[in-house]
Amino acid sequence: MPRYAFKIEYNGKGFAGWQRQKDHITVQGEIETSLRKLDPDISSIFGAGRTDAGVHSFGQVAHCDLTKKWENFKLKEALNFHLKPQKIAILDVKAVPDDFHARFSAIERKYLFRLISRRSPLVLDSGLAWHVRHELNLEPMLLAKECLIGKHDFTTFRSTSCQSKSPIKTIESINITKLMSTYGHEYQFEFCAPSFLHNQVRSLVGTLEKVGSGMWQAEDVKNALIAKDRSLCGPVSPPEGLYLTNVIYPKNPF
Amino acid sequence: MPRYAFKIEYNGKGFAGWQRQKDHITVQGEIETSLRKLDPDISSIFGAGRTDAGVHSFGQVAHCDLTKKWENFKLKEALNFHLKPQKIAILDVKAVPDDFHARFSAIERKYLFRLISRRSPLVLDSGLAWHVRHELNLEPMLLAKECLIGKHDFTTFRSTSCQSKSPIKTIESINITKLMSTYGHEYQFEFCAPSFLHNQVRSLVGTLEKVGSGMWQAEDVKNALIAKDRSLCGPVSPPEGLYLTNVIYPKNPF
Repeated sequence: MPRYAFKIEYNGKGFAGWQRQKDHITVQGEIETSLRKLDPDISSIFGAGRTDAGVHSFGQVAHCDLTKKWENFKLKEALNFHLKPQKIAILDVKAVPDDFHARFSAIERKYLFRLISRRSPLVLDSGLAWHVRHELNLEPMLLAKECLIGKHDFTTFRSTSCQSKSPIKTIESINITKLMSTYGHEYQFEFCAPSFLHNQVRSLVGTLEKVGSGMWQAEDVKNALIAKDRSLCGPVSPPEGLYLTNVIYPKNPF
Repeated sequence: MPRYAFKIEYNGKGFAGWQRQKDHITVQGEIETSLRKLDPDISSIFGAGRTDAGVHSFGQVAHCDLTKKWENFKLKEALNFHLKPQKIAILDVKAVPDDFHARFSAIERKYLFRLISRRSPLVLDSGLAWHVRHELNLEPMLLAKECLIGKHDFTTFRSTSCQSKSPIKTIESINITKLMSTYGHEYQFEFCAPSFLHNQVRSLVGTLEKVGSGMWQAEDVKNALIAKDRSLCGPVSPPEGLYLTNVIYPKNPF
């Protein structure tokens, strides 16, 4: 059966996350429903990252085996047609070898977290960023994030419902950028790792925000990491600031 | 009576434009309703630009006379409280002299128009940009916009319902920037002028898009301008790409 890889954008609002669930609208569920209008005999699609309810993406990758061959462009167009009016767009489709697996072939995942610090409510960015009403300092956050880079036991920074066998993960890089504007500032947190634990990015951003707001010191983050104790994590940040931006493969199918 | 100036952000979707209308939800109407909860005796607020239905802003300015004095910060907070859950945010409030008039004191208005050219539907930018499914060329648009800069009779590029006494306006600058991305590109059109005619920016962008898509030549824009004939205008672009970004005063109140 010919295998196809999909590059997918979605607005997480209104979806109970990526993963198919009975009686809930999910991104995976909607794409499978649309694919079955083209090919009733598909079994399932496999995604690179199982994003939570409310989390966005403009770089999710999934694959699926179809029963007949399609032109990449026609498959993309047909799928986008059937996905309407759901807030899911297929950005690209490519035929891939049988051994390509969206999840298991991936060697790196990239996430972006947008935080907007301003007094007034968010309007144009409502639902697209975490709104924090107080001011933050960039420098302490830059200092604090250093201890998180590299291979660590991230027990403190994963959901208690995380199904990963091991809490040990390697974060390759964390970048924090401050975008200035007249009314409030935006902080963009970029994370890059082969894979992440459940709620890891949101736990880390929620903790770094505590440092930025002056309630924690950089050293508190290090101590929380070393303690391997979930109760020492800062508050988990809300999902609307988080974007899965890219998934890297040894041989990029797109 | 003490006079206050407001800097206002709004998402145009869901509003029948800026200007108060009976039986329609408008930005002016909602702000007046909220202000009357603080001061039942206000008469009316005056905005710098009467944006159309669906047009956004992150730089609208308005003023209003209140019957009592307020601290700027408290007035902003109280107004934002009462505006919820409308997609309107008061970014700033300043007490201003009696001779400040949001509309008549303004010497310059700036608009941004966002156009995204890509095959797949817009998801994260849905409602925040004009979606065009074909490709555009930047160079011909850069060539074509030159003839529009300066003082001209813009009869071709104004709505037939425009109430301005004269069709003569002076455009100080038009900048067009292309932002590259993997799937499609964004074109940002920035317009700067002391004032604009009704539908002028949307008429100009709709016409420039014809040039970018190769259906018009740069010379056709010049001929349309010279003809002073509304029927020679390109299609008026949709409102969701347009943002009132700034209003300039001889003495900035903010």
